Amino acid sequence: MKIVRYRDAASNEARYGILEDQTVYAADGDVFSGLTKRDAVGSLDEVTLLTPIQPGKIVCVGLNYAAHVTENDPSRTVPDEPVLFMKPQSALIAQGEPIVIANPENRTDHEAELVIVMGREARHVSEADAASYVLGYTAGNDVSDRVQQQKDGQWVRAKGYDTYCPLGPCIVTDLDVSDTRVESRLNGEVKQSQTTASMIFNPHFLISYISRVMTLRPGDVIMTGTPEGVGPMQPGDTIEVEVGGVGVLSNPVTAR
Amino acid sequence: MKIVRYRDAASNEARYGILEDQTVYAADGDVFSGLTKRDAVGSLDEVTLLTPIQPGKIVCVGLNYAAHVTENDPSRTVPDEPVLFMKPQSALIAQGEPIVIANPENRTDHEAELVIVMGREARHVSEADAASYVLGYTAGNDVSDRVQQQKDGQWVRAKGYDTYCPLGPCIVTDLDVSDTRVESRLNGEVKQSQTTASMIFNPHFLISYISRVMTLRPGDVIMTGTPEGVGPMQPGDTIEVEVGGVGVLSNPVTAR
Repeated sequence: MKIVRYRDAASNEARYGILEDQTVYAADGDVFSGLTKRDAVGSLDEVTLLTPIQPGKIVCVGLNYAAHVTENDPSRTVPDEPVLFMKPQSALIAQGEPIVIANPENRTDHEAELVIVMGREARHVSEADAASYVLGYTAGNDVSDRVQQQKDGQWVRAKGYDTYCPLGPCIVTDLDVSDTRVESRLNGEVKQSQTTASMIFNPHFLISYISRVMTLRPGDVIMTGTPEGVGPMQPGDTIEVEVGGVGVLSNPVTAR
Repeated sequence: MKIVRYRDAASNEARYGILEDQTVYAADGDVFSGLTKRDAVGSLDEVTLLTPIQPGKIVCVGLNYAAHVTENDPSRTVPDEPVLFMKPQSALIAQGEPIVIANPENRTDHEAELVIVMGREARHVSEADAASYVLGYTAGNDVSDRVQQQKDGQWVRAKGYDTYCPLGPCIVTDLDVSDTRVESRLNGEVKQSQTTASMIFNPHFLISYISRVMTLRPGDVIMTGTPEGVGPMQPGDTIEVEVGGVGVLSNPVTAR
């Protein structure tokens, strides 16, 4: 099933829906306990999509593809445990909304990522059990100001600006993520293209690892790291992140 | 006014209340638009306090008192801009709840802090206007695993374990924080004692600075950094954080 969240044109309210064959259908029920498909709302082009979930927290994993670890900083070494950081929810934007570059004088990169959406509360879960705690998967872009990332040491400012966390377009509930392609395209040109088989720490390991630190709640998301090929975006560009099975998350880039 | 949140004994529901002279009173209204005092609920000792707010995000400032910058690492330099990081909401505990040390083999420190609670949405606000966006102030303890903090580089794991963010006991809405004492006591012995006049970046500057990165929403909190005197806690200890005018946030320390 592909879950979307959209703005209902008549009521102006946010609603969950189901996406099938480029058509958005209304849905009854709760996103975590099960949605039931109702009438068609419109084609994907006609419907205003929102971020497919409103996470309580956005937990991010750094340096999770070996070839990315050293591409910007040759002195970095491959971590023996996942490196965790967070992005604020205020950074979230949906499919089609603009990424507003806060500091155009600083190199500001795209980072295409597979994103895990939690379906159940998870605390000290094993890697073997992790899949049963997942609602589904979506795509994300971990937009990063490289100058401030380097200067601050901590990454929250560089990656935490409003609009620096595009998420969507939908959540796929039945995706095998053992070998899923994660790709970015800048103005149509492929910049990143790798599969999750190249991750240092796989998604189920990450859920287990993070759940041993912090309780994960339904709707929380885990951004699983970006593969090699990151690079700068400029106002006027369009950046697309595609995750196999999920579809394309496309955002225009503008200046503040 | 001193605002608390408590668990109503009859309904088992979370409610906002008003604290006066060690007595908790029920309150009507909305915490952000104004509370009206009703009947007494009980003495502070009888009432089960919750964290005084449920923040959407917990934004933290590192290295904000000069004497703390170098006390654990002499190679550190005083930052020319605030260093931002985040703690997850899943780490929050209230007055009286135990801090559960996740890794007893690692030095795990108390960090007493003044905490800002936002009252209105704040985006690109000036330092001069910052006060009008504040609901009030409370006390917090930024519990930190020093081994993992050093190893990871990023601080989210070391500071993000469940129970590593005690917050409370109340929110004071009319506090002058230009020279407020921030103190910690371990088993009654004073460990940290400094005033906010020693901050490198004052609270109103921090609100302005952070609001230029990320939109702050009502209920979001800013932990403003800890003064010198941090040190380890052991299972069996009791750690108190006192912020002048707010009162004492006291938590026992246990092992997982």
